[in-house]
Amino acid sequence: MRLPRHNAAFCKGCFNGFVHDQTLKAIRSQQMFTKDDRIVVAVSGGKDSLALWDILLKLGYRADALYVNLGIGAYSESSQDKVLHFSEMMAAAHGSVLHVHRVEREEGAGIRELAMLVHRPTCSTCGTIKRYQFNQVAIQHDYDVMATGHNLDDEAARLLGNVLHWQDEYLEKQGPSLPASVDGFAKKVKPLYRLTERELAAYCILNKIDYVVDECPMAQGARTLLYKEVLNRLETESPGTKQVFYWGFLEKHRTRVMPINMEEKDRAVLHPCSLCGQPTTAGTCSYCKLMARAKASTPH
Amino acid sequence: MRLPRHNAAFCKGCFNGFVHDQTLKAIRSQQMFTKDDRIVVAVSGGKDSLALWDILLKLGYRADALYVNLGIGAYSESSQDKVLHFSEMMAAAHGSVLHVHRVEREEGAGIRELAMLVHRPTCSTCGTIKRYQFNQVAIQHDYDVMATGHNLDDEAARLLGNVLHWQDEYLEKQGPSLPASVDGFAKKVKPLYRLTERELAAYCILNKIDYVVDECPMAQGARTLLYKEVLNRLETESPGTKQVFYWGFLEKHRTRVMPINMEEKDRAVLHPCSLCGQPTTAGTCSYCKLMARAKASTPH
Repeated sequence: MRLPRHNAAFCKGCFNGFVHDQTLKAIRSQQMFTKDDRIVVAVSGGKDSLALWDILLKLGYRADALYVNLGIGAYSESSQDKVLHFSEMMAAAHGSVLHVHRVEREEGAGIRELAMLVHRPTCSTCGTIKRYQFNQVAIQHDYDVMATGHNLDDEAARLLGNVLHWQDEYLEKQGPSLPASVDGFAKKVKPLYRLTERELAAYCILNKIDYVVDECPMAQGARTLLYKEVLNRLETESPGTKQVFYWGFLEKHRTRVMPINMEEKDRAVLHPCSLCGQPTTAGTCSYCKLMARAKASTPH
Repeated sequence: MRLPRHNAAFCKGCFNGFVHDQTLKAIRSQQMFTKDDRIVVAVSGGKDSLALWDILLKLGYRADALYVNLGIGAYSESSQDKVLHFSEMMAAAHGSVLHVHRVEREEGAGIRELAMLVHRPTCSTCGTIKRYQFNQVAIQHDYDVMATGHNLDDEAARLLGNVLHWQDEYLEKQGPSLPASVDGFAKKVKPLYRLTERELAAYCILNKIDYVVDECPMAQGARTLLYKEVLNRLETESPGTKQVFYWGFLEKHRTRVMPINMEEKDRAVLHPCSLCGQPTTAGTCSYCKLMARAKASTPH
């Protein structure tokens, strides 16, 4: 496995060591969690989140997982199969628990139908639902922190999009470790932000982790894919571009004592949703609004 | 002429009007100069700088020009021919003067030889020499402001490079209007920052301005070309990306009262060069150092 950005090449054992080291470095440098903390990993069946679950267990962390079945036909069933398989074959031996939520069972409709009912794009509806359910499970089961599988490519692409439009508000929230600023909001971390998509795919293959290869059929996130393509072009010409770009941003922000500001700001604007109690800036949170609208448009 | 980023298409007359309007908007919004000011345009023989000279004269500004012949064989001779031709056929009628400097005559060697003598890349040597000579002419002939033909593509590519590496120091100096912060430094402006490369090429063709099409043979500025390629890819998918990116940056910086800081900083660190008197942060300026090194290595 050649890694031009580190000017290095690894055999299988050393590559696994490299992946584990980079994850540990992320966890420690960003004070994500300790061995005492209970972690819930948001798993989708894709390479990043399954790799994350695997890495955390092998590093000796107390990591459970949550899979949200969005009801996207065969795609969701195949994703769930991969997650169940990993859970039984790898995670169970560590005493790790898998929570499974089915949107169809809990809300009476899959993501496609819900998005149609509320006249909103599927991806943004899906985002609202997943964020809500992950947070809910983290709070209800008293997890200390919620971990997602976002990698360096994801974060660099998101940063490029935010920088191209100079979206200060989003730039402020784009860190790999967001504190639990108010009661009812779980701490959120991204322990894979130092590893690329390619490295995580290689990790899964080397460690026989079976994952869903296809992108979600609902929406390819065209904009994000374009930013990734462009960053890959720059990376090919100049290895290390992505990490210099994203890590440089983190370094720059760190020196500006940003997280403290964010916590203060959050405390000032967030309060419990009138229906469910999760923190929101409005009277009713976006998830409850979405579900109320979906129910109102359901034919009786 | 179709302009997807403005969602518009123009005939010849309207397109010229559009180009003139965008230039006026740049000049006024950034307080670059007035009709009373004497301007010196840095011309290279390429489309941007000749278009700029043409536009300023047609808008009724007092614009002279300076061409620096760098002694790059046939390329420099052909560039100089285009500049002389434009000067005689178009600019002279406006009473506009062209200054011509020949590096070979003034320093005894062309840019290639000078770069070899001082063991530095040609492009950085060339940059030092051009910046120095343009500033010198502006100061000696009492011009109020120096104008260069940098366009939106140039500025967006430069910004992308600076942002990818988070080079704060360069980010601070990347405005289209840099004040004459200290005695001996001319004010520098970029009136074409609202127009793209493609628009300026079209302007030259429509207005029969003959220009050097080839890039400089010494160095293609590979990095800048790569950034331009990547921005063009984003622009194709999402027209307006470049302007949102660069203008958004300017807007963001404007609100941070940046230019005042820069003037103060400059005053604190700049003082006259011990040899030539132009402002420098060191005892001897980089131009004088370069020439001293070149002379020391010249075989006698």
